[in-house]
Amino acid sequence: MLVDSRLRAYRDLVESRLDELLPSPTAVPARLHEAMRYAVLGGGKRLRPLLVLASAEAAGGAPSDAVDAACAVECVHAFSLVHDDLPALDDDDLRRGRPTLHKAFDEALAILAGDALFALAFQIVAGSSPDSAKVAGSLKILAGAVGSEGLVGGEVLDLENERQGPDPWVVKTIHERKTGALIGACCGLGAVMAGASREEVDRLLRVGKMLGLAFQIVDDLLNETSNLADIGKPAGSDRERGKQTYPAAFGVEAARSESERLLELALSEIRETLGDATALEEVARSCVVRNF
Amino acid sequence: MLVDSRLRAYRDLVESRLDELLPSPTAVPARLHEAMRYAVLGGGKRLRPLLVLASAEAAGGAPSDAVDAACAVECVHAFSLVHDDLPALDDDDLRRGRPTLHKAFDEALAILAGDALFALAFQIVAGSSPDSAKVAGSLKILAGAVGSEGLVGGEVLDLENERQGPDPWVVKTIHERKTGALIGACCGLGAVMAGASREEVDRLLRVGKMLGLAFQIVDDLLNETSNLADIGKPAGSDRERGKQTYPAAFGVEAARSESERLLELALSEIRETLGDATALEEVARSCVVRNF
Repeated sequence: MLVDSRLRAYRDLVESRLDELLPSPTAVPARLHEAMRYAVLGGGKRLRPLLVLASAEAAGGAPSDAVDAACAVECVHAFSLVHDDLPALDDDDLRRGRPTLHKAFDEALAILAGDALFALAFQIVAGSSPDSAKVAGSLKILAGAVGSEGLVGGEVLDLENERQGPDPWVVKTIHERKTGALIGACCGLGAVMAGASREEVDRLLRVGKMLGLAFQIVDDLLNETSNLADIGKPAGSDRERGKQTYPAAFGVEAARSESERLLELALSEIRETLGDATALEEVARSCVVRNF
Repeated sequence: MLVDSRLRAYRDLVESRLDELLPSPTAVPARLHEAMRYAVLGGGKRLRPLLVLASAEAAGGAPSDAVDAACAVECVHAFSLVHDDLPALDDDDLRRGRPTLHKAFDEALAILAGDALFALAFQIVAGSSPDSAKVAGSLKILAGAVGSEGLVGGEVLDLENERQGPDPWVVKTIHERKTGALIGACCGLGAVMAGASREEVDRLLRVGKMLGLAFQIVDDLLNETSNLADIGKPAGSDRERGKQTYPAAFGVEAARSESERLLELALSEIRETLGDATALEEVARSCVVRNF
């Protein structure tokens, strides 16, 4: 199968499994469950789940064994977007071209729906495999990527360093934590679910961290140069808020070439993996070569 | 050793392990780590950790094997209090007689410190035992207790049913989810960490759920009748907000006798456990027989 149609099939697998794993919109408390579904099922590129499935395949496993782990990551991602958009944080009204959760529902429900999605992610990990070693291994990678030294810590640094003037060390640290940690975890989770060796898991964790940083640099570049219709939120919003970004700290050209350098490094590691890496190579490229 | 000094020793064990497991207040992002420590190390009865340790012992294990699981539950509990106190939710200024986290720091940091504590809880579970089956078993119990059908779902129902007039079914459901689920999980986690059989884990989960409901009924009674100095927040605050409470839905006398009935039921199950249940009996009584 051509890699494009394989990736489409992976995305369909993830969409239908997410729909199954999310609580029914009629179960009590119905409004909470509606909000959780609104946050997760509202589109999105599903980059993180695709990385999990493609990494499982690159590590020699079956993508289908990693579908639940992929859905768990997507729930963590959705939780983090919902909380980041809150009035006390980034105060965003739009996400993927639709009202953010606290606009579509209310602020209390947005906080709690984020919390419930976070809990659901770990419920999904708990049921992701009959093999306890895989569950424990996934848990370690995912929880470590989210906490104060990962995603949430990155968000704090992001807020603390608004309007502080661009600082290369600071922006790299923010991006490594806020974006790189979870995307890194995706590749590691795929490898764990494939039953890969410690060495292969570590290799894929490295690949994911490089791709995560490259992905965020490209996001910064797109925020600087694209328009609302392409990225689903107003262009230039990072600059307006005095956010730390790669183009601001390093310049547009240096940022672009750094993202390309990271992609090449990641691709050379991907070629060392033991399984079929064609899908992972394609997803890796799509982190960097994109318009939205 | 007398049961009182044993429980004191358990509490000390938990305090010093929490101090170790929480990130250093000097590590980046320092303010986030300070906030996490403020939320967790600010006193509290440590009822939930004591239930974990005492349940491990009642199930025939060593309490020391369950210390990390106990700390994980306390981090979940602290996370839930921080988010419940937020302006968009209960909007509380005081907790345990001190400013709530969003008052002592700010709202964004309170949201993110809650999230980071939630992640930390699962990081702690990941490292709680070298035995993957125990890690996977704990994860299943803890994540299930927190999500939309547990603690977070209970908080949503609590908010939705403010000023709706007392309803016996609603208040029971709220209490079972918002308080009973996590306290139930404590006893189940202790049993899992003790390596107990499925049957013993289920027994202790039942015990914990009964104690959790009884504990919340007593909280409702104390909120109705105590004063600021005893409970660390203004008395009568539930009534003022039109919260669903047992005294409001069933009357003070019926609420009190229901809490005592649940305690007796729990104690009779506790006496069936296979290990040394004296500490668990004592902690169970302290859920119901208390002034604060």
